[in-house]
Order: sequence, then C-alpha cells, then structure tokens
Amino acid sequence: MTISQRRARLRRRLAAADLDAMLVTDLVNVRYLSGFTGSNAALLIRVDDDVPVLATDGRYVTQAAQQSPDAEVVIERACAPRLAAAAAGRGVRRLGFESHVVTVDNHALLVKAAGDVELVRAAGAVEALREVKDAGEIALLRLACEAADAALADLVAAGGLRAGRTEKEVGRDLESRMLDHGADGVSFETIVAAGANSAIPHHRPTDAELAAGDFVKIDFGALVAGYHSDMTRTFVLAPVAQWQIDVYDLVATAQRRGREALAPGVSLSGVDGASRQVIADAGFAEKFGHGLGHGVGLEIHEAPGISASSAGTLLAGSAVTVEPGVYLPGRGGVRIEDTLVVGSDDKPAPELLTRFPKELAIL
Amino acid sequence: MTISQRRARLRRRLAAADLDAMLVTDLVNVRYLSGFTGSNAALLIRVDDDVPVLATDGRYVTQAAQQSPDAEVVIERACAPRLAAAAAGRGVRRLGFESHVVTVDNHALLVKAAGDVELVRAAGAVEALREVKDAGEIALLRLACEAADAALADLVAAGGLRAGRTEKEVGRDLESRMLDHGADGVSFETIVAAGANSAIPHHRPTDAELAAGDFVKIDFGALVAGYHSDMTRTFVLAPVAQWQIDVYDLVATAQRRGREALAPGVSLSGVDGASRQVIADAGFAEKFGHGLGHGVGLEIHEAPGISASSAGTLLAGSAVTVEPGVYLPGRGGVRIEDTLVVGSDDKPAPELLTRFPKELAIL
Repeated sequence: MTISQRRARLRRRLAAADLDAMLVTDLVNVRYLSGFTGSNAALLIRVDDDVPVLATDGRYVTQAAQQSPDAEVVIERACAPRLAAAAAGRGVRRLGFESHVVTVDNHALLVKAAGDVELVRAAGAVEALREVKDAGEIALLRLACEAADAALADLVAAGGLRAGRTEKEVGRDLESRMLDHGADGVSFETIVAAGANSAIPHHRPTDAELAAGDFVKIDFGALVAGYHSDMTRTFVLAPVAQWQIDVYDLVATAQRRGREALAPGVSLSGVDGASRQVIADAGFAEKFGHGLGHGVGLEIHEAPGISASSAGTLLAGSAVTVEPGVYLPGRGGVRIEDTLVVGSDDKPAPELLTRFPKELAIL
Repeated sequence: MTISQRRARLRRRLAAADLDAMLVTDLVNVRYLSGFTGSNAALLIRVDDDVPVLATDGRYVTQAAQQSPDAEVVIERACAPRLAAAAAGRGVRRLGFESHVVTVDNHALLVKAAGDVELVRAAGAVEALREVKDAGEIALLRLACEAADAALADLVAAGGLRAGRTEKEVGRDLESRMLDHGADGVSFETIVAAGANSAIPHHRPTDAELAAGDFVKIDFGALVAGYHSDMTRTFVLAPVAQWQIDVYDLVATAQRRGREALAPGVSLSGVDGASRQVIADAGFAEKFGHGLGHGVGLEIHEAPGISASSAGTLLAGSAVTVEPGVYLPGRGGVRIEDTLVVGSDDKPAPELLTRFPKELAIL
C-alpha cells in the first residue's frame, strides 16, 4: 500500500463521517500519511482532493520536498492554524481535528484561524488505520525484529550474560549490538533486571551485578526506519533451581497459549484470557499484574491494547506483542514476549517476527 | 531550595492570580514539584495546604512513597480527573490547569470531574518557576556538563576524531564515553556533521566518513538525574584552510560576545543581538538562521528562548545556552555552544558549565 492509498482509506472514513477534511497534527500520524519526519508539521487531508497540504517551518524546506513529493508544501511556523485557515479558504465546512492531541490553548488558536469552519472532534481516526499494517510496514517490523534477534544471539554467544557484569553493562552491550546489526536506534530504554530485580516488571538497569542463580530478564527492541520491535527473554545463570524451572515453564505455556489465540476476529479480552487463565490455574493470578500485550509499529505502544478490559477484536494484519509474566517479589520474575503479525482469514496463523528461541537457557 | 519551597513559590503565584489550587499534569512539572518520575501522574497543589496530592497508578505505589514522601498519594489510572474531583471535594473554587498541555478530550473529562469548580487556564505557570534554577539543580547541571566535557576530552585524546571514521561511529563513541563518565543517558541524539554536512544546522549522523580538511561539528549532551547538558564544538581535520580559520574566528568572537552579554535584567533580544551583530557586520547575517540560545534544565529546550523576537529579560540563576553558528551550504559550517548559568546582581558574571576549550583545534 502506498502512502497515497493510506490517505485514500482515511478520506473514505472522513466522507462516511460527513467531514470535508481532516487536520492531522500528531507528528507520527503526519509521518504515516505523508512520509514527512520533521519535528514541526501539520497535514490537511481533503475528501475531494488527493493532494495533501503539508505545513512545516523554514528548517524543513528541502526535507519536505524530498519526503513528501506529492504534497503541496506550505512554510509557516504555526503549522496547524495555517492549515485551519487554508481549509477555510478552500471551502471546507466540517474539519476533523485530533482532539486527543490538540491542547486547549492550540484549539483556541485553531478556532480563531478556522473562521466559519466547524471543528469536529476526530480522535484516533488515523491511529485506527495504523492498527492494520501494510506490506511495507511489516517488512520494516521484520527488519527491526531481526536486528534485535541478532543482537541478543551475539550477546549470548559472546558470553555477555555472566555473573559479575552489571545490568547497565549488559544493557549497553546489547544496545550497541543492535546498532551493529543495522538498527537506527533503540525502541525504548533496554530493561535488564537480574535476581530479585527481575520481579519488577519495568525495572531500569542499575549497577547491580548479575550473580549465579539469578533470573536475568531482558526487554528490549530495535528501531528501523521508524518501526519498533519489542521482545523479552528471561535467562537463568547456573545453577538453576526447581522453582525457576517451574515459573519459567508456566510463563512459557501461558505465552504459547496467547500466541495460539491470535487470529483475526478474536476478542482482545479473549486473547488476554487464554494466556492469563494458564497462570491463574497455577495459582499465580495476582503475580501477573499487567495486560497481555499491545500493538506496535511507528510507536512502541499503539492500538490495540490486549488486556482483560480491552473492547473490540483483533484485526488481520495488526502487529502485536504477547508478553505474560509472573513476578515473585524478593525472588525474581519471568516474562516472555514476542512481536507477531496477526494472520488473515485465508491464513489465520500469526507470523512470528521475534525468532530468538524461547526454551529455558541456563548460562 | 527544597521541593517544598518550589511549591511555596507556586502557591504564592496562585494566590496572586486568585486561584485556590493548581492541577499539574505535565510530567516534567510534576517531577519538579514532587520529585516523582513515574510515567502516569498528576499533582494537586493547594494555596492553603503545603501537602500536595499526587495521583498515579498501581505500578508506582512503592516509587511514589519513596520519591514523594511528603505527598498524599492517590492510586488511580485516570490521574487528572481524579484530582479534579478531589479539588471539588475539598472546597476549591478556582482551579488552574495547564492549558498548553491538556488536550481537548482530556479537558472535557476534567470539566465533568470538576463539577462546580471553575477550571482556569494557567499555561506555563510552572515553567516560569523552572526558569530560575536552585542550587541543587545547578549542581546537577554541572555534573551533566562535566560528563560531556570529559567524554569529548577522552574522544579527542584517543584519536577518535580522524579521517575514515563515519559520523555514526564518532557519535556512538562519544555517547558511550558520556555513559562511562556517569551520565544516565544522552540529552538528545548526538549531532556529528563532517565536511559539507556541517553546514546543516541539525544534521543527523550518517555513514559519511570524516575526511582531511573537513570541519567536524559535534553537538551533544549528557543527562544526569533528569538534567541536560548542551554543548557544541567544531574541529578541523588537517590541513586547515584560511576560510575555515576566518569562519571559526568569526563564530568564536560572536559566541564570546553573546556570553559577555549574559547578565540579569538584560533583554533576551539584546543578548541575541550582541552576538548576531558580529556575524552581520562580517556580512554573514543570512548564514546564521536560528536563535542564539535557549534555557536548559529538566528539558533540553525550556524557557527562556534567546532570539531576535524574544520578549522579556534574563533572570538571575537561569541556565541558558549561547550557540551562534555560520553555515556555508556545500562547504561547511561552524557552531560553538556553551551552557551557562546567569549571575546575580551581586555577582553578575555568568558561570560557564561546559568547560571544554574553544580555541580552534586542528586534528
């Protein structure tokens, strides 16, 4: 799907909502619909014209022309008011705006600039489109996941997970290896959590040293051309204890059930439940205190959320994580997380993008 | 100044604006006024009570108690509406809110939760306080700047700036050395721009190799306990050409004039002008297309802006950058940037925090 086709999908939705145009101000959404990656921009999409109007400031004249060759570019620091005025000048009557992004102060500026144009809340309209990934997006997600897989494989092969190294050292080593494998950056601050720290779901790496007998939980991702990977693996530094094997097997089973439940049309809360039930049946329901997963793409967390309270169903071609965990305060915790692409009705099995092995590795 | 004293300053300002309380939702402002660093939070500050009410979700029960021991902590995922309702329940009549941060959708939730409480726009109230740094903040800025200084010194001493290395390699090397010197992270994505790329003010590092005769412009910073440093240095890889010496000397003179103009009470546009005039007098006015500097602290860009169009004056104890540049498209550019703390009426000279030498270094 080309970027023009993405805009065509949005334009059909706008028409269905009786909107003449939409003012896109979220920068990730601007990028999705125009290709432009500058730090100050807004985009006007009109139902009756495929040519979008991209506003940005003087720093980005060249970049806008390169990244968005099919857009009409307007140079103006106050991007959104400028486009609201442009909409007024081009006969737009009802203009959608991103009410989940636009601040109260900026809304006042839009109202002033829009004149007689009616500003209509259209929160999440673009994010809903972004939930289903097109082939180009999936290709980039694959590259991001491959860079993460390769970096972790290198780290383990090099003996990088060993007693005496600090969590911070391991995190830096892994991040450096992702860059070596072509990542543009990291998806988020790498989590390396050893021993009792592994029981903290979102632990930040410290100077604590890895020690024999520790769980080592690593949650990390690579960024490639704007797309994020997300993967968690948990290792044990020998010797392993029976309770660790038991907790690991439990989470691994729950994670497999969650992956197996991924199919188009399945309820999001049902996917969460398929995995969570395994942990609850073992008596650890209260040790798994977060949702099962989330969408991933141009943002590390995007639609859909997959939790017990999620409404709606999985869509074919969405990219999501499956990441159950069991956390035992003071002892340690296990989380296992993959990024996958939900299949289609013809081919319902999901595609696993994070392919690093999930068997318990005792290092 | 303690965090309680910061709140006392805000409470006096609220009282002067006839507000009974303020709902702080910007996470940096929440941190500034409470010490809490979680990713979901809001803070209620009341004029007639020094105990703030901090709302956050269940992930942060322990962290909130540790980081904000003097706050009343409320656990609730929808932090801001919860505190708006709390304000209503505690007799607040006029409640300030951050209209430059709160979205249109979230404002609707606040209005609903606040009942009879009047929501009053109070944009930038906390940012205005943050402009003047207290002693603890300056100590952290010093540490951040020292980490950056030491990293750059190491890089140069190790021969890290040499022909054949790529911009990306140099950037990664420098970032790694900042972490070695105690930085928690980087302030922003390091800019390394060699040769003609140095003429692009905010170039992102590429696989382009440094070559003999290049300008190499490096703009980078370290993050320490939430505080950002910001420094730019420009080097030449031998042999140096006369035009490079001339441009460098021009920018160095302009930068010195800018630093010398920093004093409490001086107009912001005047500081910009003191530096810019040097470049204009040499006939390069159009080759310096950005403002002279900006405040720096818990954010890499904060109040005050220092440009030709800035209103207002420099405040004693504010931390700012001074960073003129001259950019010659296709040939190369020079920017020299320091972070400084503006002096007081008693002691008007600014404190230079970024102490790496500024003499032209030919490597």
